[in-house]
Amino acid sequence: MYIEKLNWRYATKKMDPSKPVPQDKVDRIVEAVRLAPTSSGLQPFELIVVTDPDVRAKICEAANGQAQITEGSHLLVFAAWDNYTPERINNMFDLVNDERGFTNEGWEAYRERLLGAYIPREANVNFEHTARQAYIAFGVALMAAAFEGVDSTPMEGFDADKLDEILDLRARGLRSVTILPLGYRDTEGDWLVNLKKVRRAPEDFVTTIG
Amino acid sequence: MYIEKLNWRYATKKMDPSKPVPQDKVDRIVEAVRLAPTSSGLQPFELIVVTDPDVRAKICEAANGQAQITEGSHLLVFAAWDNYTPERINNMFDLVNDERGFTNEGWEAYRERLLGAYIPREANVNFEHTARQAYIAFGVALMAAAFEGVDSTPMEGFDADKLDEILDLRARGLRSVTILPLGYRDTEGDWLVNLKKVRRAPEDFVTTIG
Repeated sequence: MYIEKLNWRYATKKMDPSKPVPQDKVDRIVEAVRLAPTSSGLQPFELIVVTDPDVRAKICEAANGQAQITEGSHLLVFAAWDNYTPERINNMFDLVNDERGFTNEGWEAYRERLLGAYIPREANVNFEHTARQAYIAFGVALMAAAFEGVDSTPMEGFDADKLDEILDLRARGLRSVTILPLGYRDTEGDWLVNLKKVRRAPEDFVTTIG
Repeated sequence: MYIEKLNWRYATKKMDPSKPVPQDKVDRIVEAVRLAPTSSGLQPFELIVVTDPDVRAKICEAANGQAQITEGSHLLVFAAWDNYTPERINNMFDLVNDERGFTNEGWEAYRERLLGAYIPREANVNFEHTARQAYIAFGVALMAAAFEGVDSTPMEGFDADKLDEILDLRARGLRSVTILPLGYRDTEGDWLVNLKKVRRAPEDFVTTIG
């Protein structure tokens, strides 16, 4: 039951470096990210999976030394498109046509509408949009990890410019927006593991209009 | 298996108005949204659950007439905080102290650090941050609905200013960022239901550094 999985997971503060996450679990989490829905199906981001210890050590430094990055076994980096371009949008519409084996007037009109709306916008406005789409997949990844019994730590506390440099993302038209170390909790060393998960009460969070 | 659930779900284009979603399913999806992780645990958004048909008809109008809003039985509106305020941040830190039954020097120092970082920032910068947190929960809600066998349609295509007005969100310091109608697919009337789900191939989406 997904509610139990959401209660089981927490922002793991200390991971056990002696327990790597099996590759098949990582592969399924990555596949969940790939399947996550995005606005108009554009998937305006890429996923970088880092295991290399030296690269992770550098990223750890760019993230205030948060040790889960090196103590875990895999680091997922969600890197959003820095902008929408005609090429990127057309590639996705063309791929849909290829995969479905037909073109459609309504779909082609929709392509033109998106091109007309997104291309003239400022890069920063488009980037905020692509970043939000990456966050949908980020939520999906968190849940997928919990279903695998894999611990993870959602992290925004890093220097995005430095991370972009370490992974050479800008040259690819990408910008890091959020990262997720994967590993297994070190229950002895984690100050958070036994503390109560705190959320606002339903009456302070949900309004019903019915 | 969550991969199957992600393959099962799709952006439902036509819902069957004769099949309302049972309340216990909606309650669990809402609980999943409440349990979703957010940056520093601030939960900088609220969820509005709309069933009232007149209100949904108005929202439908503000969303280019997308009929899932009225043909489904429930509409989830993700409304992000328009800004961070000392009161909002302090309330969350105080709640954590209350629920855990102790205060902690490191935690209090972290509170001050967040207040120092967030309060001087421009409202728009903070809003982009709160919006992204709402998108994590949006991803969680999509998956929760799929696990319940409930169809949903992730939607950004609406006039946020109009929706804010309809739900009087601005007066509460909230801004709508995304919406999710819940219902059951009308397989006869839905042009998308039998079309292939298209995603970029793994090699065009995932980079491994290891």
